Amino acid sequence: MSLTVVGTMAFDDIETPFGKSDRIIGGSATFIAWAASNFVKPINQVSVVGGDFPQTELDALKARGVALEGVQIKKDEKSFFWSGRYHMDMNTRDTLVTELNVLADFAPHIPDSYQSSEFLILGNLTPQVQLDVIKQMKQRPKLIVMDTMNFWMEVALDDLKKVLKEVDVLLINDSEARQLSGEFSLVKAAKKVLSMGPRYLIIKKGEHGALLFHENHVFFAPALPLEDVFDPTGAGDTFAGGFIGHLAKTRDISFENMKTAIIVGSAMASFCVESSAYSVSAKSRRKTLPAASNSSYSW
Amino acid sequence: MSLTVVGTMAFDDIETPFGKSDRIIGGSATFIAWAASNFVKPINQVSVVGGDFPQTELDALKARGVALEGVQIKKDEKSFFWSGRYHMDMNTRDTLVTELNVLADFAPHIPDSYQSSEFLILGNLTPQVQLDVIKQMKQRPKLIVMDTMNFWMEVALDDLKKVLKEVDVLLINDSEARQLSGEFSLVKAAKKVLSMGPRYLIIKKGEHGALLFHENHVFFAPALPLEDVFDPTGAGDTFAGGFIGHLAKTRDISFENMKTAIIVGSAMASFCVESSAYSVSAKSRRKTLPAASNSSYSW
Repeated sequence: MSLTVVGTMAFDDIETPFGKSDRIIGGSATFIAWAASNFVKPINQVSVVGGDFPQTELDALKARGVALEGVQIKKDEKSFFWSGRYHMDMNTRDTLVTELNVLADFAPHIPDSYQSSEFLILGNLTPQVQLDVIKQMKQRPKLIVMDTMNFWMEVALDDLKKVLKEVDVLLINDSEARQLSGEFSLVKAAKKVLSMGPRYLIIKKGEHGALLFHENHVFFAPALPLEDVFDPTGAGDTFAGGFIGHLAKTRDISFENMKTAIIVGSAMASFCVESSAYSVSAKSRRKTLPAASNSSYSW
Repeated sequence: MSLTVVGTMAFDDIETPFGKSDRIIGGSATFIAWAASNFVKPINQVSVVGGDFPQTELDALKARGVALEGVQIKKDEKSFFWSGRYHMDMNTRDTLVTELNVLADFAPHIPDSYQSSEFLILGNLTPQVQLDVIKQMKQRPKLIVMDTMNFWMEVALDDLKKVLKEVDVLLINDSEARQLSGEFSLVKAAKKVLSMGPRYLIIKKGEHGALLFHENHVFFAPALPLEDVFDPTGAGDTFAGGFIGHLAKTRDISFENMKTAIIVGSAMASFCVESSAYSVSAKSRRKTLPAASNSSYSW
């Protein structure tokens, strides 16, 4: 069992109604790898960073069993940078700044040692890069999971639709599902999105849980109600990492096991939003699973 | 096992982004009784109507096993009237008109035949009337469930707090929980509300499901994702009717059984919002439970 993770490794600036943190480590592949490394090793990371990305963060990932052969380091360039401001509900946000930097001309290269990966997750990234990675895999992975965001629906919809035809599972949030489908009802939206390619669709609703759609079935997974939400950044990627990590560990890609994988992803994400945001490794080191409970939780 | 239901029997005007319906039958006690009558008989109804309330609607309730001895008919007055407009999300709404009419000086009278009720549900109504009913019960029911709304928090908060001290279960929606507690986090809100009297708190979140809080436990019940939401009016009361109906039928008021009761209430409510709104009896007659499923549903 091996897992390849593709995505960004980046710096984030986060503002919430309760505080502000400057240039913390973020990126879809960073969060996914941290979360998934609780379940499987090795994790084959594919990404690109600038010379400004701290070696300590790379070392910390390596210590978790994350292979970095597929991570390009462009010494004279700057890492991808994103800045956002969360609204009072801590569930919606505005993007303030997006600086592509090294991401602008990123051409991923899949090392030979990654080729046998049974599981592939395409974190939020340019659809063209996501498609490029799929094409470089000599043998199609057993399961391809993909995340994306509204930004790509606006600037690269045609490319995005090409990737959708190649993946098994799409992970998006409720507003993205509405935007991609043009439907307000999430049930109608799901039907349209499933007709675009993926056999499974997971709609993330933050504190309201997540929905898994497949053929004519739907599963509604609750989220752990939290007393304090400190920083939701990376929650979706942590969810994705827990989801694919559980599937890769159990090597069972049935609908039934995906239900469990969503519960695992939700539990991981609950730790992510509660933790302090000063560094992703500090956040992620705390991400161990709580005692199993299918029905109720204690405060 | 017997159940007493207290609440309004009324006329509603409903506007949604998709249509408008004039003077349909509504009211908290009407919806609760229709839903609960799927589970227990007799249902002891306590309410007040004007001479304009159709005899056919009263007959339809009677045929469902609803005792009407506690329903006062004031022939020369008008029934309670409410008018509201739903927002695009079909989950939030504005009240346009509230005409108390017969409700303005309603003094409930509990008939002797209702006195042995083991279960009492106080539908949304003046807190003073809710308190009056509790005081008239010679023997305290095994379980008292109460619904209320933001309106009473604004105009009768002191009375509302008195009722809260006397009930076992409070049913409110998320915005009402925030308003009553002054807390944005629903977990914090729940702690404050539980300190006001009720041992159980159910926070309804519409399409996002419902939360049950008790001591240091929380249960998150999903809602059935719906393709079409036609008219959400009465959904909360139908939920309440299914909830208390299941508890009264099983006579088990444990936390575990309340979880099941919430799932039952959610299933009943899903039928309510899907059905056409031209008459509550037409809506309610369709409210039979779908095939049991704890985990996933078919479209």
